[in-house]
Amino acid sequence: MDTKKFVLSKSKDIASWYNDIVLKAELADYAPVKGCMVIRPYGYAIWEAIQIYLDQLIKNKGVKNAYFPMFIPEDFLNKEKEHVKGFSPELAVVTHGGGQKLKEKLILRPTSETVMYYMYQKWTNSWRQLPILINQWCNVVRWEKRTYMFLRTTEFLWQEGHCAHLTHPESMDQVLWALDAYQKTYNNLLALYGIAGVKSESEKFAGAGKSYTFEILMPNGKALQACTSHDLGQNFAKAFDWTVADKDGKNTYPWQNSWGLSTRSIGGLIMVQSDDDGLILPPNVAPIQVIIVPIPGQKLDSYLKNITDKLVGLRYLIDQDENETAGFKFNKWEIKGVPIRLEIGQKEANQNQVTLYRRDTKQKQTVSLDNLSSEIEKILKDIQTNLFEKHKKFTQDNTHTVDSYDQFKKIMSTTKGFISAFWCQDPTCEAQIKADTKATTRCLPIDAKKENGVCVHCGKTASHRWLFGQSY
Amino acid sequence: MDTKKFVLSKSKDIASWYNDIVLKAELADYAPVKGCMVIRPYGYAIWEAIQIYLDQLIKNKGVKNAYFPMFIPEDFLNKEKEHVKGFSPELAVVTHGGGQKLKEKLILRPTSETVMYYMYQKWTNSWRQLPILINQWCNVVRWEKRTYMFLRTTEFLWQEGHCAHLTHPESMDQVLWALDAYQKTYNNLLALYGIAGVKSESEKFAGAGKSYTFEILMPNGKALQACTSHDLGQNFAKAFDWTVADKDGKNTYPWQNSWGLSTRSIGGLIMVQSDDDGLILPPNVAPIQVIIVPIPGQKLDSYLKNITDKLVGLRYLIDQDENETAGFKFNKWEIKGVPIRLEIGQKEANQNQVTLYRRDTKQKQTVSLDNLSSEIEKILKDIQTNLFEKHKKFTQDNTHTVDSYDQFKKIMSTTKGFISAFWCQDPTCEAQIKADTKATTRCLPIDAKKENGVCVHCGKTASHRWLFGQSY
Repeated sequence: MDTKKFVLSKSKDIASWYNDIVLKAELADYAPVKGCMVIRPYGYAIWEAIQIYLDQLIKNKGVKNAYFPMFIPEDFLNKEKEHVKGFSPELAVVTHGGGQKLKEKLILRPTSETVMYYMYQKWTNSWRQLPILINQWCNVVRWEKRTYMFLRTTEFLWQEGHCAHLTHPESMDQVLWALDAYQKTYNNLLALYGIAGVKSESEKFAGAGKSYTFEILMPNGKALQACTSHDLGQNFAKAFDWTVADKDGKNTYPWQNSWGLSTRSIGGLIMVQSDDDGLILPPNVAPIQVIIVPIPGQKLDSYLKNITDKLVGLRYLIDQDENETAGFKFNKWEIKGVPIRLEIGQKEANQNQVTLYRRDTKQKQTVSLDNLSSEIEKILKDIQTNLFEKHKKFTQDNTHTVDSYDQFKKIMSTTKGFISAFWCQDPTCEAQIKADTKATTRCLPIDAKKENGVCVHCGKTASHRWLFGQSY
Repeated sequence: MDTKKFVLSKSKDIASWYNDIVLKAELADYAPVKGCMVIRPYGYAIWEAIQIYLDQLIKNKGVKNAYFPMFIPEDFLNKEKEHVKGFSPELAVVTHGGGQKLKEKLILRPTSETVMYYMYQKWTNSWRQLPILINQWCNVVRWEKRTYMFLRTTEFLWQEGHCAHLTHPESMDQVLWALDAYQKTYNNLLALYGIAGVKSESEKFAGAGKSYTFEILMPNGKALQACTSHDLGQNFAKAFDWTVADKDGKNTYPWQNSWGLSTRSIGGLIMVQSDDDGLILPPNVAPIQVIIVPIPGQKLDSYLKNITDKLVGLRYLIDQDENETAGFKFNKWEIKGVPIRLEIGQKEANQNQVTLYRRDTKQKQTVSLDNLSSEIEKILKDIQTNLFEKHKKFTQDNTHTVDSYDQFKKIMSTTKGFISAFWCQDPTCEAQIKADTKATTRCLPIDAKKENGVCVHCGKTASHRWLFGQSY
C-alpha cells in the first residue's frame, strides 16, 4: 500500500483528491479498458455491506431475485420510443460471436426493462398472476464519455427491481417503497443525508411516467443523483403489447415500476465521508470496524486475546505485520477510514487498558479493558450518528431559499449548493436556467408544500419550490 | 404455473424431460437471445443458497471478493498461447460503443485470468505482497453452438477464484482446497456424489499446468464436469511478464491458480434429484423446505399459527391461494420438489395433528403437533442423506472396472456410466478411444493407486486406472 502523504487536499482540489483516495485506500483501480474500473477487495466489501442491507429490505417486501441475460436484441430497445432515444448514445454493441458475424446485433443491457417485460408478457395472462415482484443484482453498460471511478463508469454494478401491478396505486406504492428503502440505506448505513423527490419532465428516466430520486449534496456543492425509482405507467406494457385479463375478464395493460441503486453510492460515500487524511467510514458499512495495532516486537499475544474476547460480534482485524512500523500502520488504517483504532503496547498491557483512537474526531482516549465492550459499542454508534448529523448540517447549511434570479446566479457561480426556488415547470425556462447557471432541477421534494409563488427565472405563476443544483 | 402432467418420462427421454422440468418448475426459461436463459426466482433462489454456502467457505479461507471488468482487450487474450487457442472459437466481441466503432475490439470475458493477472502485476513488486487471494461472482460469456439450460448457456453465472503465491506448494494447497470446497458443496448441499481427480493433458484448461475436476454421473450414464480448479503454474505470470522480488531480492514469477463453479451445478442437481413427477430438492438447498397446504375454504388460521410456531428456523411457506384446489397445489409443489408437504384440514386441526408427505419416498404419515418440530427436523436430515446415498449407490453401481477394450466399447454403446481402466497416458491413444466410443478421460481420481497395468486400448504399460465416461 502506498501511504505517502496526500499531495492533494480535499478542500482545494476535490476531483484529484478523490481519485487519489480511491487509489490509496485500495478501493478501486483503473482497468486496462478506458472508462472501466476494478473494484478491489476493500471497496467490494463496502458493496457487499450495501447488498446485504438492501437485499434484506427487498426480500422483506416480497420481491424475489432472478437473473435475466445481459444481451438485448437491438429491436427490443426500439420498441419504447423515449427509451431508445435516451439510451442509444450510450450503447455497447456485440456484432460477432463464436467467430461469426451475428445476424442481429446484440446490445449489452444499459438497463433491463425491455428484456424483462418481454418475459413478463410470456409468463402472464391474468390479473391473478400479478403482481410480479422481481429484482436482479448485475452489471450494466453505459458508454460514457467522461468517466469517474465509482461515480460514472462504462460498466457498473447495481440492482434493478422491476415490478408489475394490476393498478396504478399499487405500482405507486412500490415506487415509493423503493425510494424509502434507498433513503434508509443512505441514512442508516452510509450516514448520508439527502432529499427525496420527483424529477421534472425533462430530467426523468427515458420511458418513465414519473421518476423519483434521492439527491445528495457533495462537499463541493454539487448534487449527486444517488438512486432512482420510476413509475413507468403502462408505457412498456403498451410497447410490448402486454395485456392481462382483469377481474371482469377485460384485457388491461399492467402498471410497471423500476428502481435501481448502483456502485455510484460508494462514490457518494467517499466524497462525503472523508477528510484530508483519508476515508472516514461509517461503522455500519465499514469492512473493518476496529483495527488493532500492537506495537511491533513486543510480546502481546495473550493480552490481544483478552482484547478480542471483548470484541465478539464486531468486524475487527489485528495488524500483526512485522515488516511495518506502528506509525506506518496508523497512517495506512487512517487512509482506509477504519472508525476505531486500538493501540496496544506493553504499557497498555501492564495497566490493563488500551489506547483508543477515533477516526472521525481524531481524539485519543485511554479505555480500561473492563469497559472496552460497552465503550466501543457506544463510540461506534456515536461515530455513525455524528457522520450523519454532520452531513445533514452541511446540506442544510448549503441549501438556500432563493427568490431572486440574481442571487440564484451568484450562488451557482460561487459556493454552489442546493437552491430551493419557485419554478413555473416550463421546460424552456428550466433549460434557460441551466444555460445561465449550469444548475438543473434536482427534484420537487416529496414534502414540498403548495404555495402561491412566482418562477425565480420568468416570474410566471409557480405553485412549488423545486430543488436546484449543479449535477456531479 | 403449468401443472399439466409431464408428457415425457425421465427414464425414456431425459433430454426433453429435463427441459420440461426446468420450464414447469419455473426454474428458468428461454431468453429472446438464442443460447441464453432467464433464471427465474425459484431457480435463482437455489443459486443464492449455493452462493451463501460456498462464499462462506471462500471467506473462511481468507479469499476476498472483488470485481474486475467484463471487457477484455483483444490483445490480452493473445498473450497466453494455449489460452487464446482454447477460447477463441467461443468469444463474443464488442466492436461499437457510444455510437462509434472502437479502436480496439473488446472481448466479453469467457474467464478472467488475463485481466486479473494484468492488475496483479500492477499491484505487486515483492513477495511480501503475496499471496493474492481474490474471488469474484460474475457473469461470463462463451459462445456455444449447442446450448442446454443451466448445463451450457452462452452467458452463465459463476464464481472464479484467482490466487497467486510465492511457491508452487502453496499454490497447490489452494488448488486442492478449492476442489475440496466444491466437493463439500456438492456432497453436503446438493446431495450429489462424485469423483475428484486430475484431468489429462488434452482435457485440461487452456493455459493450465494441471486441471482438477469433480465429475458427476448423470442418470443417463453420461458424465458432468461439475467444476474445475487449475494449477496454472507460472504460465500467466510469464505471459504478463509479472515478477516479484523473492526473499533473496531476486525476481521470480508468482505461481497461480484459478477455480470456478457455475450455474451448471443447478443443471446437475435437476438431472439427478428428480423423478417422473418433478424435482426432489435436497432440504439444505431447497428454497422452500416445508410447504403447508391448508384445505381451501376451511377456517384454519389459528391452527396454522400453532403449526408455524413449530417451524421456526425453517424455510416454510403457506399456500393460501383460494383460486387453486388442494390437488392442484399438491401437484404444483410436487413438481417444484419441496421436500416436505403438510396437509392441513379441519380433521387434522381437531385431532391436533398434520398429514405429512415426504417428496423423496412419496410416503404419507400422520404427525402429532407435539412432535412436529423434532419429526420434521429428523425427516429433513433423512431426505438429505437419502438423496446423497441414492446418488452414491447409483454412481458406484454404474462404475465399471474394465480390462478389455471389447467390454469398454460394449458398455459405452449400451448402459454407459463410468469406466475405471488402465490407460497409457498417450494422447493418441486417448483420441482413438474417444473416436471409437465417444468416451473421454474424465480424470485420474485423487485416490488412484499406482499399479502395474496395461492400457485398455493399446496394451502398453500403464501405471494408473483412469476414469472414463461420455461427456454431457
